[in-house]
Parts: sequence; C-alpha cells; structure tokens
Amino acid sequence: MRISVIGATGYTGAELLRILAGHPEAEVVHITSESSTGSRIADLYPHLSGIYKQKLESMQQLDDIIADSELLFIGLPHGHAFNICPALNSATRAIDLGADYRFKNPAVYEKWYKLKHADDKTRAVYGLCELYRNEIKTAKVVANPGCYVTASILALAPLLKEHLIDSGGIIIDAKSGATGAGRALALGMHFSEHFDNFRPYGVANHRHTPEIEQAYSELAGQNVVISFTPHLLPMDRGIQVTCYANLVPGSGENDIAAAFERMYGDEYFIRLLGRGAYPAVKAVRGSNYVDIGWELDPRTGRVLVMSTLDNLVKGASGQAVQNMNIMFGWPENLGLKQVPLYP
Amino acid sequence: MRISVIGATGYTGAELLRILAGHPEAEVVHITSESSTGSRIADLYPHLSGIYKQKLESMQQLDDIIADSELLFIGLPHGHAFNICPALNSATRAIDLGADYRFKNPAVYEKWYKLKHADDKTRAVYGLCELYRNEIKTAKVVANPGCYVTASILALAPLLKEHLIDSGGIIIDAKSGATGAGRALALGMHFSEHFDNFRPYGVANHRHTPEIEQAYSELAGQNVVISFTPHLLPMDRGIQVTCYANLVPGSGENDIAAAFERMYGDEYFIRLLGRGAYPAVKAVRGSNYVDIGWELDPRTGRVLVMSTLDNLVKGASGQAVQNMNIMFGWPENLGLKQVPLYP
Amino acid sequence: MRISVIGATGYTGAELLRILAGHPEAEVVHITSESSTGSRIADLYPHLSGIYKQKLESMQQLDDIIADSELLFIGLPHGHAFNICPALNSATRAIDLGADYRFKNPAVYEKWYKLKHADDKTRAVYGLCELYRNEIKTAKVVANPGCYVTASILALAPLLKEHLIDSGGIIIDAKSGATGAGRALALGMHFSEHFDNFRPYGVANHRHTPEIEQAYSELAGQNVVISFTPHLLPMDRGIQVTCYANLVPGSGENDIAAAFERMYGDEYFIRLLGRGAYPAVKAVRGSNYVDIGWELDPRTGRVLVMSTLDNLVKGASGQAVQNMNIMFGWPENLGLKQVPLYP
Amino acid sequence: MRISVIGATGYTGAELLRILAGHPEAEVVHITSESSTGSRIADLYPHLSGIYKQKLESMQQLDDIIADSELLFIGLPHGHAFNICPALNSATRAIDLGADYRFKNPAVYEKWYKLKHADDKTRAVYGLCELYRNEIKTAKVVANPGCYVTASILALAPLLKEHLIDSGGIIIDAKSGATGAGRALALGMHFSEHFDNFRPYGVANHRHTPEIEQAYSELAGQNVVISFTPHLLPMDRGIQVTCYANLVPGSGENDIAAAFERMYGDEYFIRLLGRGAYPAVKAVRGSNYVDIGWELDPRTGRVLVMSTLDNLVKGASGQAVQNMNIMFGWPENLGLKQVPLYP
Repeated sequence: MRISVIGATGYTGAELLRILAGHPEAEVVHITSESSTGSRIADLYPHLSGIYKQKLESMQQLDDIIADSELLFIGLPHGHAFNICPALNSATRAIDLGADYRFKNPAVYEKWYKLKHADDKTRAVYGLCELYRNEIKTAKVVANPGCYVTASILALAPLLKEHLIDSGGIIIDAKSGATGAGRALALGMHFSEHFDNFRPYGVANHRHTPEIEQAYSELAGQNVVISFTPHLLPMDRGIQVTCYANLVPGSGENDIAAAFERMYGDEYFIRLLGRGAYPAVKAVRGSNYVDIGWELDPRTGRVLVMSTLDNLVKGASGQAVQNMNIMFGWPENLGLKQVPLYP
Repeated sequence: MRISVIGATGYTGAELLRILAGHPEAEVVHITSESSTGSRIADLYPHLSGIYKQKLESMQQLDDIIADSELLFIGLPHGHAFNICPALNSATRAIDLGADYRFKNPAVYEKWYKLKHADDKTRAVYGLCELYRNEIKTAKVVANPGCYVTASILALAPLLKEHLIDSGGIIIDAKSGATGAGRALALGMHFSEHFDNFRPYGVANHRHTPEIEQAYSELAGQNVVISFTPHLLPMDRGIQVTCYANLVPGSGENDIAAAFERMYGDEYFIRLLGRGAYPAVKAVRGSNYVDIGWELDPRTGRVLVMSTLDNLVKGASGQAVQNMNIMFGWPENLGLKQVPLYP
Repeated sequence: MRISVIGATGYTGAELLRILAGHPEAEVVHITSESSTGSRIADLYPHLSGIYKQKLESMQQLDDIIADSELLFIGLPHGHAFNICPALNSATRAIDLGADYRFKNPAVYEKWYKLKHADDKTRAVYGLCELYRNEIKTAKVVANPGCYVTASILALAPLLKEHLIDSGGIIIDAKSGATGAGRALALGMHFSEHFDNFRPYGVANHRHTPEIEQAYSELAGQNVVISFTPHLLPMDRGIQVTCYANLVPGSGENDIAAAFERMYGDEYFIRLLGRGAYPAVKAVRGSNYVDIGWELDPRTGRVLVMSTLDNLVKGASGQAVQNMNIMFGWPENLGLKQVPLYP
Repeated sequence: MRISVIGATGYTGAELLRILAGHPEAEVVHITSESSTGSRIADLYPHLSGIYKQKLESMQQLDDIIADSELLFIGLPHGHAFNICPALNSATRAIDLGADYRFKNPAVYEKWYKLKHADDKTRAVYGLCELYRNEIKTAKVVANPGCYVTASILALAPLLKEHLIDSGGIIIDAKSGATGAGRALALGMHFSEHFDNFRPYGVANHRHTPEIEQAYSELAGQNVVISFTPHLLPMDRGIQVTCYANLVPGSGENDIAAAFERMYGDEYFIRLLGRGAYPAVKAVRGSNYVDIGWELDPRTGRVLVMSTLDNLVKGASGQAVQNMNIMFGWPENLGLKQVPLYP
C-alpha cells in the first residue's frame, strides 16, 4: 500500500519510518519536511541510513502527494492537520498523530490548545484501538491518541466501564521519557540539565488532561474530572502512570480482576500482570505492548492501577500503525510484533 | 568532638563520613563494620581514599567505643540499635539512622517491621529538625527520619498544621534514586536491569507509610491515613514527592503561601519556590536543601505540593549531622553548607 | 526449522529469543536452563511475556533435545560447549556463542581461558560472517565471535588485508555497555556503583585480545600483536572501538576509502560512514548493523578507524542468527532487518 | 579577598561560584553576564538559590569592577580575555579559564583557534598547579589549563620527565562528560540524542592537542607529537584518559612506580592507585582530585597510564581556585577539600 508521511522529521515521524520499514504491506512513497526539503532522512537520523533512500519533499505539492497515496500519516504540529484533511480525495485516508481531531467538542480543543478548530466537516474517529476498533475500520480520518492518554485510558477503562470505581477522586501521576518533549532544542532538555534529573511540569494544566477526561467520561457515562500530573524522566522512552481511584462500596479484588480480563483478555498488545505485579518501563521498550498491574489498598479503600508503554510506539507511531492495520483489514499486529528491547 | 560511626559501610554510612570530613567540630574516632573488620574504608569506597586512614573495627568492643565517644551515629539494619542505645553511658549520645526508635507506638513498629520493639526504656526524639528542634536539643537518642518521610512531612506540614487541607484524601506519589535501595546486590538493582528503567515498588505497603502518618496525624490533630506509592528512578540520588490534598472550603492561594512562609520562612535548608515553580531533583544533589513548590488545581479543588531532596543527605546523613548540630548547640548549618553539585 | 537454545537465561540467550521470535523460518522447540528448570522464560525476563510459553528444560536430556533439533544455539559459560558439540548427531548443527571453538590453536585458548581445550575432533568454523561466509555455509559447528572482537576485526580488516597499515603499533581502545558483563550480580555492576561512572578494566589481559590477534594475523599474513583496552560505559548496550594504526609509506586517503569499499561495499550490515564521520553507538542500538568511520592524522601518520555495534546483536545473538542464515541457505538478513531503536 | 567573576553563566562560571561559596577567604563582589545582565544567578541556576543574592552586572563597567577587585576569574569565550588582562591595574590579578594565554608561542594559538593573539604584553603563567607552582605564586595572570589537558599532562609527566617512555608513539584516548561541551544548545547535546549514546568527536583536530604537546615537549626536552582522540560520555561530569606510551629499553615497573612517587608522593590532590588499579570517574565526582593508575603490557612493551578527574573541578574551576590559593599564599587545598560525591 502506498503511504506518505507528512512531517517526518520529529521523533514520532522517525519512529513511524522505523516501524513501517518492517511492515510487509507498507510502501513509503513520500516523506515530507518543510525545514529539510531535499535532504535525505538519514542526514537527519543516521540510524535510518541505508533504509530509506528517497529525498524529503515539500508539502507544497500536497495534492500530488494525496493523489499518489492511499494513506497519509500526519506528523505535524497542532493546527496543521486542518489544512490537510479537508483536501483528502476519495481514495486517500489519513491518520493524524496530532491533537487536531481528538476532541468531540471543538470548544475543548480551542480552550486547551489556544487555536481555532478550523475544520468542522471532517468526521474523525478517535484511534484508541482497543476501545474504538469498530469505528476505526471505516474511518476516513483517525485521530491517534496522545501518549499519556493511551496509558491512562487503558489503565482505568475496565473499572470505569463496570462502575467499580468512583468517577470522582481520580488522580493520575504520570512520568515520561524525554522523547515526549520532542526534538526541538530547549535548555530544560539540554543533556547536562536533564541527565540525572527528575521534575514535574505542566502541573494542573497539561493538554492531555481533557483528552483523558473525554474518554473517562464516555466510559463512566458521566462527567469525570481528574488531576493529571506529568513528570519528566531522565531517559529517552517510556511512560509510566500510577492511577489512584476510590473503590465503590462492594467492589473488590475479584471484580477488578474479572473486569480487566473481560476487556483485555484477548488483546494482543495488552499484557495483564495482575494484582501485585508492577510494570517496568524497560519491559516494553521499543514495542507496542502496554503492561498493566494493579494493587488494592484496603487501608484507604483505593485501587491503584499502573500501566506502562513506549511513548513513541503504543503512545504514538506504533498505535498509528495499529490503526492502519485496522483500517485496511490486516491482522492488527501485522508489522508490530517487535519484541521489547531488553535490557 | 569525638564521634564514632557504628555500621559505616552502607551508603548512608559512607555519606556520613563524606559530610563529617568537612565538619569543623567533628573528629571521627571509630568506624565499625562487622563484614569488613580490619579493612580501611577506602578499600570499600575508593572515593574516600586519602581522607580516612583508620581501620574498620568490630562492634564487639562496643563498650570501649562508647567510652571513647561523645556521639554515636548508628547505621545498622533495623533491630540492631536496640542492642546499642541501652548500653550508652551518661556521657555519650546517639543518632540512629534506622527505624528502631522512630515510632511513638511500638506496636506500629512491630506491625510494619515484623520485629519485636526490644527497648522500652530509651526515650528517643524524632529527628525531623525543622519540626522538633527543641526536643532534639536535649535528646539522649535521636531517631533520624526516613528519606521519603522527610520529603513528605515537610511538603504538607504547614498545610496540615493550619488546617488548610482535608486530612482525608491525601495521596503521595514518590520517586527515589537507587541509593535508597542500599548497596546489597539484587537483580532489580543490577545495572543492566535498572538503567533506563522506571517502576513502582512496595505499593500500598511501604514501611515509610506509618512514619508519615504519625507526623501528619500529630500536625493535623487527628488520625490521618494516606496512600503512599514509591517508585524507583534510574539515577543514584534524589527523592521527589508529589503530594495531592483536597483544600478545605475557603482556603486559597494566599493562605497556602502564608502558611509556607510562616513555617519555613527562616529555615536555612528549605527553599520555597512558591506557586507554579516545580523543584528539580538535580538542583539539590549533594546538599542538605529541600526545595518545595506547589500548585492549585481549581478544576479539582486540590493543592499539589512537590518537594525534592537528596535522599542520602537531607534524607539521611545530612539531617543526622543537622541533628548533631542541634544537640550540641552549634549553628544548625555547620559543616552542611555544601552547595548542590550541578550539573 | 527446529531450534533449541541451550543456556538461555543470560543476556545473549534472551537476546537470541528476542530475535528468533521475529524470524520467519525459526521455531524454538527447546529452551534450557539448569538454574531455572521448570520456570518459564517470562518469569526471568518479563519483556518476553506472551511471546514464549514453553517451560525451561534441563540439559540432562541433551540427546533427546539434539534428536529433536536441527540447530542448537549454545549460550553456556566457557568450557561447557565441549560437552555438547561432540554429542551432535549427523542431522544437527550448532552455533556456539562462547569461546570454546574460536581458536585455531588450542594452546592459545588454554593460556587465556585457563581451561583445558577438551575437544580436538570437532572442526569448527569461526563465525565472523563477512570474512568467513563460505566456510560457514557448510560448517557443522560455528564459533560465534566475541563482541569486542567483531567490532575490532571489521574496523581494520580491509587495511590489514591490503597492507595499508603497519601490522605493528596497533592500539584498540574499546568501550562497552554493561550487558557485556552479563547478568551475574557483582558490586561493580550494582546500579548505584556503575551509573554515572566510567572505568577501564581487564587492561592488558582481556581474553578478546588473542581472538583479535588471530584474525589480524591471518589478514596481514604475519603475526600481529596489539594493545587492547576495554572500558565500561554507563549504558546497557553498545560497543565502540577506536583503532589506531600507522600508515605504511605511500598509502593515503584514496587507498583507504577504496579498501573499505572493496571489502564492504556490498555488505548489508556494514554501513560505511567514510572519512570524517564518526559512528555513534545509539545509531545501531538493537540492530545488526556495524557503523564504521575513519580519519587520517597527517601530523602523526596514523589512521584512526572507529566502529560501533550493539554488543548483544552483531556482537553476539544477531551475528549468531546471521550465521544460521548462512548455514541454511536463507538470505543473510532474514529476520535481521530490525531498524535501530533511536532515540 | 574581593573577587569578581567575569562571565559567570557557563558551567565553569557556575562551578566557580559553587566552590567559592565554601572558600573561607573569598568574597564574591561582582558577577557579570552580558546575556543576562540584571538577573540573579539563581534565575539561571536554581541550585544556587539562596546562596548568591547580587545581580549580574555588565562588563561594560570593567574598570570599576577591576578597581573594586583583587582578583578576577575570567570565564569568557576564547579571544575575550585579550580585552581584559591588559586593563588590569597594579592591584588586581587574574585567572583566565579560557585558552587565550595558554600557549608560549602565539602562532600555535592562532593556528588552532583561528583567532589573532591580540595581547603580546601580558606575561601569563600556565596554571597546571602541580608542575608550575613556583611561577604561579607571583603571576599577574594565570592561564588555567584545559580539562583534557590536565588529565593528560598529569598522567604522563613523571614518565616523560624521567625519560622512561619514548616521546614518539604517544596516544591519548580521552572520554569526557557532556558538561565539557558547555551550556549552549546543540542537537548533539539534546538529551534524547546524547543519552544512552557514546561517540568520538574532534578526531585528529581537537584544540587541546597542542596544549598537551606543549607541556609534554617541555617535560621531555624535545618536540612531542601525539594522537589525541576525545569521545563524549553519556554523563555530566568527568574525564578519563587512557594514555599509551612505549617504554624505553631498560625501564620497568620499579622505575615507573618511583617516578610517580617522586613527582606526586606529596601532592594533596593526586591519588596514586599504583599498578593494576584503574581509576573510576565516579570516585572523583565533585572533587579536585586526580586519580591515576597504570599497567605494564609486556607483550607490546607499552605502559598504559589512566587518569581521571572532574572536568568542572580539577579540569576547570577547582584548579582555578587552587591557583588562587597559590597566588595568595593560602594553603593550596583551602576551600577545596570537598570529598567526592559518591555514589
């Protein structure tokens, strides 16, 4: 299948190229970059040397690229997908790795992203594969979820859906590797500053908050408001979230175990560690897996659910390819069976 | 002053020796180790080469060591201080870096440490310097607090004391460097396993939980039960805690700022970053500082307090020396003004 | 093809399982471990959870395992392959990841490994794929090369073979990630000791020295003696070697470039960066690539060749699979096209 | 003593402030920065919060600053000290942490730094304390050596001075932490790029080469030309060099041990580990120590000397303070006894 990657020079773009290189059905026909048009991707990412030969093109020939592609992956900064999706022709579909189409209510997007939601025609499907598989199959545009969001939603979805936890009082303490901050230079991401360091950021105002709340609310059948606090880990890849929720009276260990099993028992990419086993970021590195463990705290009446994933794979480009597989009717794990790189 | 370090070969012992080497009033006269009696500390810790020359002694001559010392630092595993403190003579005082004397209620110790509390005569003072300074001055034995505990207590003490937060609903999500796990070999702490990794441990049952609750309860004037979740960072030193608490009706930004200022405005070792500034572990590395920042989340009615310290310094050996300074009437920061090592 | 992995619980064994999971022709039928017989590999390596289901067996049923396998990978400590290779039947071949069969002269093995070379019947082929491809095709047993060795041989092979450098005066300054030291616990590999650290080890007596010299001597057509100095990097994976050699009179930039091109121009796994481009360990992480760059120093008349590879892939298990592909007539890169994981 | 730091916002400037804060004779009266005039240093370096209160000034009032200071530390980019040292009055001395005054022959400076050597009047002394102590005492201006240079010179000085090694054939393979590259943003120093990475740079043309050669030549009494290859470590601080040299006929273990002992036996900051002990970067972190070990390789007739130091301390600001102590007649280790921070 003919695929184009629009905006390929960020970390999620490079990761997409890494994954697509091993996908038996994918042929990458166009790779674009406005800042490096005419270069080769290996000039920017030496690890891709010998793997992709074609030159980076400009988006200015967007119509030609669309005409020549069956699928676009869009890896552009927020706001730019609004210029692309409306231009799709009838034979081309798109997966947007940005936030533009993630919200059902455009006002939420506009409030948190401080940008006008400039496309009210395109009907996009939210691409959290394990929850919205059926809608994704026929979607014209898939809005690929955020990295923290995927980890957070998958951690609590079974408990919210089965009403085992109180929809109030949810707290998510999240930690991410540095690639989540992208490739743009910044003092806080300068090696000597961030190495051997750990710190919170975006406290009480991170943009992934409303995206998590949207999914939680839909699962719970009522409005959910959460505290979400991200922190930066001194490592490249990986997201870990520790979710705190109050059990509703009467729900206990068996209910929780059963809820996880019902929702995820057959999922290829979700590995249930069960009660008392705690997921380690390194055990999913470079793979599309999500590892989930949990614990009951009888002293406080809380359940803690901990999940971990690779922010560039299941948190971005891997899930994007999983969405592609769903959209085009291939096995959902096609080209995505890469085993975690450990140690 | 003549000082002996009982059990010097763990990380807190070595750190104590590092700090005491720069203390103008301290003379280290005996260093003990049962496993390495007869060696020199630099054989075990090359960074101390050229600094300490004496040989490691055995504790079997404890009475002689006590007779020859004005102060003992005890750096032994839990349970062993019970064999030492009752043997102190009238001229010798002690600071215990372990947990044996930290609890007012021995039953709490026995429940969480699975050990008999074997000394009901020694009256120890809890050595959280900023809170119990007056009692420490005259203490015979000081129970030096745990690392997570110091960070957690100092973060919320002003708010609990002034009843600005609800004593229910407190959650502490804590992250520690690997030195907190000590020098004993274990697969999880093998470099290739822990490097580039991050994971929770001790969920809902870490022994620092009751120690935090004891202090919180005293501050709040009522029984406080918390969720405390530790995680291991892929770095050596440093603790960061993110504390979540529900504001009581009517309390707001000004009350919180004032409470912090009242309690800590004159504290040398506490640096208040204020609202919206988030402490980074690296900014306190190697120092006795505690950096505290906070944020209000009006969407959830919560206040988040984040504190950070070096687990081997303010979280262990630095606070022990601070306690020594208080006990002996020296300036509290004597020998402790070391500037953080950054980057 | 039916494959058994004998001794699977070290890092090279786990890496082999990672790679074989994605190999279209490989079926892993037996996995053995004496220390963990009866467990599952995912109990020891959670990243393999969901991928391998069978139980670890004991080597005590070696004959049955051999009878049931077309190929054995041997991942045992030095000396143990001597008990296995002589027991192979006519339908089973083996690839040994240890050192037992690497030396043409058993006396060299015995001197450096302090072990008797207990098998003088098995004719093994040295498995440096790019140099000994033809012999490997028909080998009964392949001796897979050491990690430092692969990086060092490939770096200088073209220059030695074409007599562009002096065979005296070669110095190799090598650096390796911590996985090269294996999974056995040791204080020097305890996280808090090795993190943020860097140090030489095995100076002037590392066992990879004679293995490098054996290949260099064969290439140069005369006896070559080198200085080889390994150092440990504070990271998991990756080997980098900087090789210093004196140019012979008359040889210059063009000769060197041509020699590299002649020997490696068509090699899939060798990426030639050319003069003035220096390979970075991270650009090959998780892949079977070797990146090679070089520089001339006219001030000293030396050429410096720098190569880098992943010690667990091209330095061990990846090359072992490459050898398997050669032995069984499959495309040499089958199942080995994994793109480096970057960042 | 009244001290001003000219150009304080780089890592060496911040490190100087860290060290001076604990120096009993030092009073820092002016701190300058052109890019951040009017800010406080803690705005740029939160670890210095609470320690320095004064505002950053501009160099434009240089004459006033000089008139108000007994000593200037100059932490500016290359070329800028030429504008400062000629303006010194008779009561003010200077220590330049840059390269401007390091070379006896201005032509060498001009060739390697591509800058005109714009001051031929100021007579500066090269500030490698252990070698040039007497000249430093009375110096008006001290040229503080480079970081790699200090490690390399100290490693081989005794052997060169006593003619135990051949002055030809010396190779220095050097590795540095990332702070050596400074605080200026660059893609190669972006966290996600440099973390878990290792790579050579500046091969055969690094500017520290002629500085090392100048000292080696003076020690050997003849012109010395070396190969010097720097590499970047994925850590903040620390330099390790492995030096290779050919023994002259007849020199052996005893000569080498005696030469080290004669030159360094009484040096406070040099710790001789002896033959067979290899220095680890972490054992000197944050301190002014240099640890030196060595090994003989009888197979090749070479001696290997390995030294390690903290590039920001003995490699820059610590040595600068050591120079200050020498210039002003204080004990050489005054304010510099900080014990390494380990782990």
